[in-house]
Amino acid sequence: MKTIDLNCDIGEDFGRYTLANQKEILQYVTSCNIACGFHAGDPSVMRETVKIAVENGVKIGAHPGLPDLVGFGRREMAITYQEAYDMVVYQVGALQAFLTIEGEKMQHVKPHGALYNMAAKDPEIAEAIAKAIFDISPDLILFGLASSELTKAGEKLGLRTAHEVFADRTYQQDGTLTPRKQPKAMITDQSEAAQQVIRMVKEGKVKSCQGVDVLLRADTVCIHGDGDHAVEFAKFIKQQLQNHDIEVKAFI
Amino acid sequence: MKTIDLNCDIGEDFGRYTLANQKEILQYVTSCNIACGFHAGDPSVMRETVKIAVENGVKIGAHPGLPDLVGFGRREMAITYQEAYDMVVYQVGALQAFLTIEGEKMQHVKPHGALYNMAAKDPEIAEAIAKAIFDISPDLILFGLASSELTKAGEKLGLRTAHEVFADRTYQQDGTLTPRKQPKAMITDQSEAAQQVIRMVKEGKVKSCQGVDVLLRADTVCIHGDGDHAVEFAKFIKQQLQNHDIEVKAFI
Amino acid sequence: MKTIDLNCDIGEDFGRYTLANQKEILQYVTSCNIACGFHAGDPSVMRETVKIAVENGVKIGAHPGLPDLVGFGRREMAITYQEAYDMVVYQVGALQAFLTIEGEKMQHVKPHGALYNMAAKDPEIAEAIAKAIFDISPDLILFGLASSELTKAGEKLGLRTAHEVFADRTYQQDGTLTPRKQPKAMITDQSEAAQQVIRMVKEGKVKSCQGVDVLLRADTVCIHGDGDHAVEFAKFIKQQLQNHDIEVKAFI
Amino acid sequence: MKTIDLNCDIGEDFGRYTLANQKEILQYVTSCNIACGFHAGDPSVMRETVKIAVENGVKIGAHPGLPDLVGFGRREMAITYQEAYDMVVYQVGALQAFLTIEGEKMQHVKPHGALYNMAAKDPEIAEAIAKAIFDISPDLILFGLASSELTKAGEKLGLRTAHEVFADRTYQQDGTLTPRKQPKAMITDQSEAAQQVIRMVKEGKVKSCQGVDVLLRADTVCIHGDGDHAVEFAKFIKQQLQNHDIEVKAFI
Repeated sequence: MKTIDLNCDIGEDFGRYTLANQKEILQYVTSCNIACGFHAGDPSVMRETVKIAVENGVKIGAHPGLPDLVGFGRREMAITYQEAYDMVVYQVGALQAFLTIEGEKMQHVKPHGALYNMAAKDPEIAEAIAKAIFDISPDLILFGLASSELTKAGEKLGLRTAHEVFADRTYQQDGTLTPRKQPKAMITDQSEAAQQVIRMVKEGKVKSCQGVDVLLRADTVCIHGDGDHAVEFAKFIKQQLQNHDIEVKAFI
Repeated sequence: MKTIDLNCDIGEDFGRYTLANQKEILQYVTSCNIACGFHAGDPSVMRETVKIAVENGVKIGAHPGLPDLVGFGRREMAITYQEAYDMVVYQVGALQAFLTIEGEKMQHVKPHGALYNMAAKDPEIAEAIAKAIFDISPDLILFGLASSELTKAGEKLGLRTAHEVFADRTYQQDGTLTPRKQPKAMITDQSEAAQQVIRMVKEGKVKSCQGVDVLLRADTVCIHGDGDHAVEFAKFIKQQLQNHDIEVKAFI
Repeated sequence: MKTIDLNCDIGEDFGRYTLANQKEILQYVTSCNIACGFHAGDPSVMRETVKIAVENGVKIGAHPGLPDLVGFGRREMAITYQEAYDMVVYQVGALQAFLTIEGEKMQHVKPHGALYNMAAKDPEIAEAIAKAIFDISPDLILFGLASSELTKAGEKLGLRTAHEVFADRTYQQDGTLTPRKQPKAMITDQSEAAQQVIRMVKEGKVKSCQGVDVLLRADTVCIHGDGDHAVEFAKFIKQQLQNHDIEVKAFI
Repeated sequence: MKTIDLNCDIGEDFGRYTLANQKEILQYVTSCNIACGFHAGDPSVMRETVKIAVENGVKIGAHPGLPDLVGFGRREMAITYQEAYDMVVYQVGALQAFLTIEGEKMQHVKPHGALYNMAAKDPEIAEAIAKAIFDISPDLILFGLASSELTKAGEKLGLRTAHEVFADRTYQQDGTLTPRKQPKAMITDQSEAAQQVIRMVKEGKVKSCQGVDVLLRADTVCIHGDGDHAVEFAKFIKQQLQNHDIEVKAFI
């Protein structure tokens, strides 16, 4: 029986500011990525988010981002290998302490936003992130864009590496995601999104915008926690996966 | 034979900014407190500082501060119990990861600046800090102002607690430090400073500004890393302690 | 005919984060206080907020706060006279530039949160803020808690000073607001809140929690932009004031 | 008689952190660019720096940077046109207020570090910055890399625009600076550096690394305030320029 992990970003509140849906969605996913204070999150938000994730039986990962709060970590920055390494170590460590006080183990690390995108295409940044994770603990799982420089860097180091796919994004024939600025970047029809995921899980393939099938390994699906229909969509896609005899469970 | 630990604050560079003497002084102390990015320090500085401390055989502690970079963590802030707890967990965790990648163990935690001062007199903040340290690991040693609310809170929780004394500061008859704004707050004569420390270590007493002796336990002496004569003074006081048959070694 | 100004805090979004109601409420107030990036707001939010305020014909003031984004400027900090002065100059200047590019004039300055509260009771901080405003332009109006150290400091310097009163807060017999932590600090009944304001405007008096009337000058009423019923309440209180022959218009 | 402006970056201290030489160098330059709190500087540093610049009779400009304190504004960030515009407006406004309280007029704006470099080659960022300056005041002078997209954008808007050249950097045949990472990027010999500047001022030409002369307009020379020999070099180059009948004075 095929299995798949559903993950979502979480803990992205900051101080007095809250983002909607972050908690409801934990009922439908099996892993979550908690912001670590650089692009979002703060110490109190982190503590509370860990608690809620534990209560929902969801596996926990760190979600380190660029030091750009006002840009929500979404603006690429020209950082060095060493800076990438150091900011991952720092943020993973900070979250780890909140897991420690809850007696919980960290499952994975998934870089956020622009750091994720940079790591997908830049081998140097990819290696820095993979090495930071490996040095903290070789037991951690690296979550990265499927077939990207990041998963490659993780595998080279011997890290367990989860290939992440997207339900609501279209793909290019080289396996990259269609940039958000382009038309047809997003899949807004829920059934179509579910079908794309089911095929990626069952056949390891996705139809690209160019019409050609792309081979892809699907270990975990990114479920967005924001947007008006996020919770509804998470529920729907989980149901569809189960209807197609795919077991939804954390990546091991 | 009496023993004493000498500790100093370290790792207080930030980005392009450096503070003098931080590295030279490691030759003369037995413990150091590394800034964790809130009042000073950044991920790269933390990694480098841990490395240098390890190379010098100096025991390492976390030095968490208030989230006030421009104020260097020296301005008291009206934070809650929970905020104090959370900011200590976050910062200790962040530093812990840099120790992990060096295969090193954290010895202690000493709050910085205004957080240290607030914890010395406010039982609620003191308890929050002690509890955070205890929850991360009961093996950590808490460094706090001798005979303060902070050492009291640590002892109540069963934490090993190091009472910190000052060589270059004068004391009031209630055991508190003379506030910096008052005249005679600082001891500028090196011999006088050394004499004060030697007596605190050997007799457990210090002569207050009011002329009355105050009872005090001296486990560790704070050696300031800044100032023109910091390194020279560290060297001098270490020599004086040894000349008076006091062994300078890390607190256990 | 009696007149009164209604003011509200605005522009408190930050990066990806938004706070509800901020724009709707501009239809019912005559002055607004725009956050300047220290406790909330960012350059893009400031530009957009100025535009919306201008479109609604609402007078604009700066709302400088403590440099404490995660605490939303609500935690008192032990800042010096000079630090208070400098942070007000900086923030007022930053907002001024956004008014300049819209061809608009700044009407007033109202400190935010903990800075407002500190200025209400601490003559030194009050003077620093008033002096900063005066030095930037003696034409600016200072908004401060009615009968506080801040209004006193403004008047001493010859600044036009608007005494601010609260509709939904109760008063102590010394003219201060009942601290939020105490029971009966808030007035939740809309009619009662409106009555309190009407009496303050018409008679210059408010009944304190101790039952004694307190004399008070009411130049402007603080309308909170957050909370579920904020917009509804703003509309209601404006209507009530007009029904009692009080003209709602900006302070001159 | 030929004239040239000498400018240097200044006010780059932050909180407890200081950078050397910043003040001494003001004796030898005619314009200075004051950091505005995003990449360096803070409100108190800005106030003090304005004062010192005024005392030294040096013309003052704003030196806005990217919001990246830990990276000192030296890491390129993928910002939008609007973000570039807004961050310049904010920072120029903040500095303007400190000039206002000193009764001084702002002369110019020169973007800092990565923002300067991005503006030199990216027409969109260049236009955003030029437009922000123009909207604040068409009287401000824009300082940008000679013959770059930034000077082009300024000229298109009708801003007075000062072409900046470098004494201690070599040029490529397309008129760009040799990237710092390449060998021969820096000119370390003082006489050679002075000769390069004198020729740029007198003949409007510089010999590129490829051996070909490049045409260049030289309105202002960037004098670095950091480095061991910064002050000495500033003094030397000023003397050399005067010896060659070039008047050193602010750009008008």
